Amino acid sequence: MKTKTFNLTTSDKTSFHDITDAIKQFVQSLNITEGVVHIFIPHTTAAVTINENADPTVQQDLAKGLNKAFPDDNTFKHLEGNSDAHLKSSAIGVSEQILIIDGKLHLGLWQGIYFCEFDGPRQRQYTIAVQGN
Amino acid sequence: MKTKTFNLTTSDKTSFHDITDAIKQFVQSLNITEGVVHIFIPHTTAAVTINENADPTVQQDLAKGLNKAFPDDNTFKHLEGNSDAHLKSSAIGVSEQILIIDGKLHLGLWQGIYFCEFDGPRQRQYTIAVQGN
Amino acid sequence: MKTKTFNLTTSDKTSFHDITDAIKQFVQSLNITEGVVHIFIPHTTAAVTINENADPTVQQDLAKGLNKAFPDDNTFKHLEGNSDAHLKSSAIGVSEQILIIDGKLHLGLWQGIYFCEFDGPRQRQYTIAVQGN
Repeated sequence: MKTKTFNLTTSDKTSFHDITDAIKQFVQSLNITEGVVHIFIPHTTAAVTINENADPTVQQDLAKGLNKAFPDDNTFKHLEGNSDAHLKSSAIGVSEQILIIDGKLHLGLWQGIYFCEFDGPRQRQYTIAVQGN
Repeated sequence: MKTKTFNLTTSDKTSFHDITDAIKQFVQSLNITEGVVHIFIPHTTAAVTINENADPTVQQDLAKGLNKAFPDDNTFKHLEGNSDAHLKSSAIGVSEQILIIDGKLHLGLWQGIYFCEFDGPRQRQYTIAVQGN
Repeated sequence: MKTKTFNLTTSDKTSFHDITDAIKQFVQSLNITEGVVHIFIPHTTAAVTINENADPTVQQDLAKGLNKAFPDDNTFKHLEGNSDAHLKSSAIGVSEQILIIDGKLHLGLWQGIYFCEFDGPRQRQYTIAVQGN
């Protein structure tokens, strides 16, 4: 298993950062034909998702829709005041897995991989692990 | 790692398609005793989930509940008009993993695997990859 | 692949149970340096998530926020009356994967692993499978 941890600086309270190219480059450097890429976010107010890479308004609409489904609530008890971000983190999830088939990341034509910031701006990390041969 | 891609035709805007048997048959054909099944959906307005296989009204209620949590919104910017489907895709997720233990798919008694369509009807695909021995 | 199934008794309708130590102890007993831990919940009204382990009010806020996003609805058709719990199960998800790097579970400083009960109290199970060497 090959692993690599990347750093990322986010710029807004809620934002989506395209990490597809970083992952593709790491996978290509390993010369793996078949396997699984695991992505893991070691934070509790961030997440990782796979969604449309063509129109950036999709990511804006995702942010708006998540803020509507999981709004801040003045009856939340957590004193840090970011429970809405913890909720979005659990709803989207901190891990993702992508297949490597025929030496390539098996993503659909319109799919990109996004680091999701829900309580930024912050310094963040994500770890990639690749199994295969 | 053994992989197979399946085709699927969905019939409605939002619908759940039971793909458990297709996955079970593929796994059984491989004679694997212990391992992991990875399911991946290469679309941005669909997803995969594991939920109740006994009462079909559960799937209808899942559709209704997801439409309520992530409704269409006329302030969404994406011109294709399906941002609610992109939201549901990220909330449910495009990948799933299931264990193979003692030669069998390790699912609970009431669990089935569902391809989730959020912007149908369409021609769709899903890919299964099995690691193990 | 090494697997172990754990039992758990939940105490409330919606509750979060920290299972981090049980998983850490199982992983440590295997002396694995690098690999992947798969966690699977064989239930349709429960889930697994990774979130903050420091302040227990975060888990209370997660329960409140999920009940608000996916409320019970008297137009749901499933006669068992727990469709809200099925919705939360699919939104949070029944599987999780965590990396093992340098012999340790690769979790962020504030991350714990939680069994999520959405239709308790009940007797529950979860299964851990560890790949690696």
